[in-house]
Amino acid sequence: MTHGAVFTLDTRLAADTHLVGDMDFARVLLMDDARFPWLVLVPRVAGLRELTDLPIDDQRRLLDDINRAAQALQAVVEPHKLNIAALGNVVAQLHVHIIARFDRDAAWPKPVWGIGERRGYSADEREHTLRALRTALSLQSGT
Amino acid sequence: MTHGAVFTLDTRLAADTHLVGDMDFARVLLMDDARFPWLVLVPRVAGLRELTDLPIDDQRRLLDDINRAAQALQAVVEPHKLNIAALGNVVAQLHVHIIARFDRDAAWPKPVWGIGERRGYSADEREHTLRALRTALSLQSGT
Repeated sequence: MTHGAVFTLDTRLAADTHLVGDMDFARVLLMDDARFPWLVLVPRVAGLRELTDLPIDDQRRLLDDINRAAQALQAVVEPHKLNIAALGNVVAQLHVHIIARFDRDAAWPKPVWGIGERRGYSADEREHTLRALRTALSLQSGT
Repeated sequence: MTHGAVFTLDTRLAADTHLVGDMDFARVLLMDDARFPWLVLVPRVAGLRELTDLPIDDQRRLLDDINRAAQALQAVVEPHKLNIAALGNVVAQLHVHIIARFDRDAAWPKPVWGIGERRGYSADEREHTLRALRTALSLQSGT
């Protein structure tokens, strides 16, 4: 953590995702891969790398956001399983993947990272998905 | 969650790991793969599948155990990065991976799952590693 510094979203995360909105503690993004309904939560704290770098009270706020995001994803797409992970080997900025998995999806039962080719959302799919997620998360457009 | 049922460890998790001990809420296991210092935390709750199936108070107890386990791993092996993940596509019982990663390990920067062949610990390596982890976690042998 860098005290006094301003939070900015990692440029690769920004390039690979669409903004859903800001939750209490984390920014929530939709990974631009229509094969997997896939949210990414990024705590709005500058210079953060490991979950354990956060004070426990902030980790609990993040846990609350993870629950809200997971429940929204479950409500919208009714997955077979959720995958929840903080890896950060490629993008160092702390981010938590919440991925809706289906037992006939393109990677099942493997983890999704590095499997096949990403398929970006069409404009229609993207708007439909973002609208459904924002409604489930009680978020306004792009806020 | 299955109320009234008795917690038993999934047989595949049991076969793939060595028992480190029991923390406040979760059983902690060492994955039998000497390529990666790798803990697995399993909440001692019967029939649990998703993190979000747990009441938030129990999730917070699990989060406390994750912090203790992560800090123990950091103290013992000083990794470059931690990977923390609840996937559960193959083994349905809720379990949280806490994996110490190094930028020259056998999978870097990819996630570890499904990479190459597992290399089990020798008896000496295993005893040394379990002893160091139990000391860092303030756990007695096999309890």
